[in-house]
Amino acid sequence: MPLRLGEMTSPQFAALSPKPPLLVPVGIVEEHGPHLPLDTDTIQAVATCEAVAERIGAIVAPALSYGNCSSTRNFPGSFSLSFDTLRAIARDILLDCVRHGIGTVAFVSGHAGGAHMRALKLAAEEVVERHPALRVFVLSDYELVGGLDAPFPKWDGHAGGLETSRMLALRPDLVKGSAPPHKVQFADFLVDPRPERRFPSGVMGDPTLASAEIGRRANAHIVDRLVEVLQQKVE
Amino acid sequence: MPLRLGEMTSPQFAALSPKPPLLVPVGIVEEHGPHLPLDTDTIQAVATCEAVAERIGAIVAPALSYGNCSSTRNFPGSFSLSFDTLRAIARDILLDCVRHGIGTVAFVSGHAGGAHMRALKLAAEEVVERHPALRVFVLSDYELVGGLDAPFPKWDGHAGGLETSRMLALRPDLVKGSAPPHKVQFADFLVDPRPERRFPSGVMGDPTLASAEIGRRANAHIVDRLVEVLQQKVE
Amino acid sequence: MPLRLGEMTSPQFAALSPKPPLLVPVGIVEEHGPHLPLDTDTIQAVATCEAVAERIGAIVAPALSYGNCSSTRNFPGSFSLSFDTLRAIARDILLDCVRHGIGTVAFVSGHAGGAHMRALKLAAEEVVERHPALRVFVLSDYELVGGLDAPFPKWDGHAGGLETSRMLALRPDLVKGSAPPHKVQFADFLVDPRPERRFPSGVMGDPTLASAEIGRRANAHIVDRLVEVLQQKVE
Amino acid sequence: MPLRLGEMTSPQFAALSPKPPLLVPVGIVEEHGPHLPLDTDTIQAVATCEAVAERIGAIVAPALSYGNCSSTRNFPGSFSLSFDTLRAIARDILLDCVRHGIGTVAFVSGHAGGAHMRALKLAAEEVVERHPALRVFVLSDYELVGGLDAPFPKWDGHAGGLETSRMLALRPDLVKGSAPPHKVQFADFLVDPRPERRFPSGVMGDPTLASAEIGRRANAHIVDRLVEVLQQKVE
Amino acid sequence: MPLRLGEMTSPQFAALSPKPPLLVPVGIVEEHGPHLPLDTDTIQAVATCEAVAERIGAIVAPALSYGNCSSTRNFPGSFSLSFDTLRAIARDILLDCVRHGIGTVAFVSGHAGGAHMRALKLAAEEVVERHPALRVFVLSDYELVGGLDAPFPKWDGHAGGLETSRMLALRPDLVKGSAPPHKVQFADFLVDPRPERRFPSGVMGDPTLASAEIGRRANAHIVDRLVEVLQQKVE
Amino acid sequence: MPLRLGEMTSPQFAALSPKPPLLVPVGIVEEHGPHLPLDTDTIQAVATCEAVAERIGAIVAPALSYGNCSSTRNFPGSFSLSFDTLRAIARDILLDCVRHGIGTVAFVSGHAGGAHMRALKLAAEEVVERHPALRVFVLSDYELVGGLDAPFPKWDGHAGGLETSRMLALRPDLVKGSAPPHKVQFADFLVDPRPERRFPSGVMGDPTLASAEIGRRANAHIVDRLVEVLQQKVE
Repeated sequence: MPLRLGEMTSPQFAALSPKPPLLVPVGIVEEHGPHLPLDTDTIQAVATCEAVAERIGAIVAPALSYGNCSSTRNFPGSFSLSFDTLRAIARDILLDCVRHGIGTVAFVSGHAGGAHMRALKLAAEEVVERHPALRVFVLSDYELVGGLDAPFPKWDGHAGGLETSRMLALRPDLVKGSAPPHKVQFADFLVDPRPERRFPSGVMGDPTLASAEIGRRANAHIVDRLVEVLQQKVE
Repeated sequence: MPLRLGEMTSPQFAALSPKPPLLVPVGIVEEHGPHLPLDTDTIQAVATCEAVAERIGAIVAPALSYGNCSSTRNFPGSFSLSFDTLRAIARDILLDCVRHGIGTVAFVSGHAGGAHMRALKLAAEEVVERHPALRVFVLSDYELVGGLDAPFPKWDGHAGGLETSRMLALRPDLVKGSAPPHKVQFADFLVDPRPERRFPSGVMGDPTLASAEIGRRANAHIVDRLVEVLQQKVE
Repeated sequence: MPLRLGEMTSPQFAALSPKPPLLVPVGIVEEHGPHLPLDTDTIQAVATCEAVAERIGAIVAPALSYGNCSSTRNFPGSFSLSFDTLRAIARDILLDCVRHGIGTVAFVSGHAGGAHMRALKLAAEEVVERHPALRVFVLSDYELVGGLDAPFPKWDGHAGGLETSRMLALRPDLVKGSAPPHKVQFADFLVDPRPERRFPSGVMGDPTLASAEIGRRANAHIVDRLVEVLQQKVE
Repeated sequence: MPLRLGEMTSPQFAALSPKPPLLVPVGIVEEHGPHLPLDTDTIQAVATCEAVAERIGAIVAPALSYGNCSSTRNFPGSFSLSFDTLRAIARDILLDCVRHGIGTVAFVSGHAGGAHMRALKLAAEEVVERHPALRVFVLSDYELVGGLDAPFPKWDGHAGGLETSRMLALRPDLVKGSAPPHKVQFADFLVDPRPERRFPSGVMGDPTLASAEIGRRANAHIVDRLVEVLQQKVE
Repeated sequence: MPLRLGEMTSPQFAALSPKPPLLVPVGIVEEHGPHLPLDTDTIQAVATCEAVAERIGAIVAPALSYGNCSSTRNFPGSFSLSFDTLRAIARDILLDCVRHGIGTVAFVSGHAGGAHMRALKLAAEEVVERHPALRVFVLSDYELVGGLDAPFPKWDGHAGGLETSRMLALRPDLVKGSAPPHKVQFADFLVDPRPERRFPSGVMGDPTLASAEIGRRANAHIVDRLVEVLQQKVE
Repeated sequence: MPLRLGEMTSPQFAALSPKPPLLVPVGIVEEHGPHLPLDTDTIQAVATCEAVAERIGAIVAPALSYGNCSSTRNFPGSFSLSFDTLRAIARDILLDCVRHGIGTVAFVSGHAGGAHMRALKLAAEEVVERHPALRVFVLSDYELVGGLDAPFPKWDGHAGGLETSRMLALRPDLVKGSAPPHKVQFADFLVDPRPERRFPSGVMGDPTLASAEIGRRANAHIVDRLVEVLQQKVE
């Protein structure tokens, strides 16, 4: 079982010296097609963090269950914190990590939206500028699937084959069947006020190619890669 | 089983008409004495919301696991979002509730700090001023224990007898023994830069009076009261 | 006569060494029933500060005549600074106190609204965190009436018996008769967009029980208590 | 006696229809040489507003006793709200004027600092852009002395002959003698971190030329001019 | 010659009906190796906009000559506006475009930093949410080089072969020789407080492969692609 | 030829020791009557800076081509950054000057609007307060014309005789004829929501008196004065 921040008492946390790395799962309440639950990204981020924490003795913080989204924002059930709110959350948590003497923090996001990731990075840059000894990693677990052997087309993405597979492996009870493939095509470089028109089913990818078996391999691959990332030597 | 927002798909959420009330559990990562876990307030808030949701058909949102604290902030393991960050989170969530046509929202906080509660209320007031049809309730579940038959002294509070009892009822596996009673005495009206000196054990109350049985009664009492609050007639 | 900051010259202020405590009266322009003037809270705060200053040799700063209100905001004549504006005022004043070498500051508010008081406290906490040697007290004078012998019901509050009595003692020329009693009942925990409907006369309490005599006793009691508060030993 | 906002009850204010112009005296706690009190600007602004209000039936609001200063900021006893704080105060007051149906507001400042005046103007512009029917005047009373017959050199300014004269007319009890003349010379266009070095006595002007008689004429002249300003026809 | 906003008079601008698209070149003052000038990105952005404007009858706005950078920020000569400043600039310009009835705006950036681009996009999203009829494009011209026939390795980037080539074609007088190739390797996902250590020469790419001829082709290719982007049909 | 920041490479800039003064031309895109181009102020500011830089060996930074305007804002073609945006730009640039070891910076604005100039000054004051060794000058070049021998009436201003003359000297190709004289009369001290009604042609002054010859003299006079300003001894 991984070390969970929320399950420790204050003296137990105090006794950890030096402090292990802190992994903060970042999720979002967001539409994920007709077949995946709104918490899909949170579930994946928590699972990744817990598996990595067990492997390297890190601590898992309570998940940030709300994030920022834009292209999916207008679908029923999507909740989006503003860019600045998410940035402020990340900043406050990092500043408290500094206060507690935590040396390494990783925000591991199940959601990979551009603004969402930038809000986390920007907060990290602002804190690291003032506290250069703090090591902060910011990544979405989908940035770690490179090299995975899987049958998905390049355009597979949000609520597609990979994501459906991972959920079939993690929480099959929450997967409601499948959904037809959809290759989304946004207008080039246009800031679209209604991007949801480009993928009315909420899917960008091919869920029909999903399987729990692929999901298990993907999850293991991501965990392996994240362990490598956190253990890389940085001189 | 309660309806959980995060477990629904987008179309399932869309199909709810009219939208049931949304209960948002608000917790915090905060020192709770030598015997209770850092997630104590989150655990209580989630339990309250889930029980109430089952009773009245409300939806439970994913918990806000980070909040704002001041007197306990300097203890190992406490994390505190700034007042403005917590306010921004509450505001963003409420604005998305308006967008989704949700008519009633309740922030149910396990933590009862003055600034923490004010941040939630202030956000609610700002949103309600612009969207007067939205009904927002903001409360800490400790504001609902009036009338409970329990043996605790008036000064029982943070990590004390009542809170320990509730945790013994909800998550006995996370309660690490007990702690000596401590009656905290703050300087009158002084903004103390180091309030933790007034309760070095992190306890304000008497955990030795706790029992799972009292905890179960307290939890049930709180649920009953919250149901009444949400169902009160407001003309 | 009390020492008034605004009546000193710069060299007179410079010559004070060490600097005496600075008392900042905080008022508001706010509806106070059909019988009390809009400046009611400012008048009380100034009177309290002046009397205390005479007793302990403190300095009285010019009053903050504008504050923040919510439940009374929609009545004719109420002016409300935003929460953030009031917070910024208090912060700026405290930072200048630090600059001037003032060691003790008290914000003494005639208005006791929750957001109003929190704005002052939050500013104080933010300044004290950076300047822990500064002693800041934040209180409303109505928090000091405990122990007063007076005939008012528990629900006596805004523009009620106590407040009317104090004004009869301080500025009888500005009291326009009396007003019928009204026991206000807000909906539990609801963020009400139109709270003024709950007390259409603007009164929450029983002005009919007021007298100048009680007012004099109340004022003296508050002064005594504030002297104690400012002189308490804090190790 | 002028109509004072703070002395009215809520129903008295409500009964005014249409609402008379509201005059808001703006002062500051600021060094004014060795001979004038810190409240000098507030005292002048209040006196101007009260005299004008009597003449044209306007309402005088409680004074803003704190303002923004820069060149005098480092002297003992000067308090300076930040630019943004002062701007926020003016904005909040104007928005409440709109809410109350007040059609004309004048900020009449006794202090004439560039940033101070700009903060008021900027707030007014921001509010007027959204509420173009609101008429807002922003001025310092020293901008109204043009045409006054007085013996002061061109470089007479802060705490100088004119200001000392006005105080001799208004509050002779607070004038502590006089001070030697000083013609200040700032470096051209340089943003000076220590401008107080250029006028160590805190005086920019010639107080030795002051008299109560000139002060009375100056005060009357300013009142006449402000009446004209407020009554000018603007098509 | 392209239509330049800054060279038109107000009536000339007013006479344009409907308003042509507005192209806003976005540059930065930023280190570009030992051989390229600090204005490199501005020069490229302006050249791209002017060529495209001539082709499609668009207007070229004055360049934004300051942008945001992070990995190059610590080099001599780099200037970086904060993320929020750049976002505010873009927002203000877009709001004025709405006011002027401009229907299409493109921010064409010569700099492609992640935070820099996100600041522009975020501003655009915020404005477009309130003004959905406004079409805003946000792109860096380096996002348009796909399909260009050029001999550069994949890792060619900042101040590398392509950028040097483009500058050789546009402003050979400002190119001071060349620089050795450097393949930068950042730590994976780490928020590095001193990223400049990874490329001490300020180059990420291979300037030795550059030529004016390739630069001309690259510039033409980019112009062609941007014309396509702006003329794409979006239903 | 002046030293231009944007034309230097990073090592060239690094080699300058000590750093010469940095001159930042500040312009605006703003209506300038029927005859002058929208970039009028930018053109003048750049020309002034380049001439001064040549004289004293200063560096010219890329121009800030966007500024803040209010009275001209509603004319076709005027763009106005908000006060806070312009302030943030100036602050960020000054902070980077500190980082780069630049000792003297001058913001030389072609536009002289009150809020525009105040935004620059306020930013400078804020930076200088934290970095008192930095010398910052803030001025509009129109503040330097005192003593110029020229035939213009006192009320000559925006787009009038002087400004037209200067443009005839600098960029005659962009001057489209002339415009009739107009003496603007604003209401006294009123914050006017539609100030453009007071000068429908966009001119405040007498362009008919302009000549290239006067313009050349004015430009030379301004350059001489700015050299003096930058070289004044400040102890």
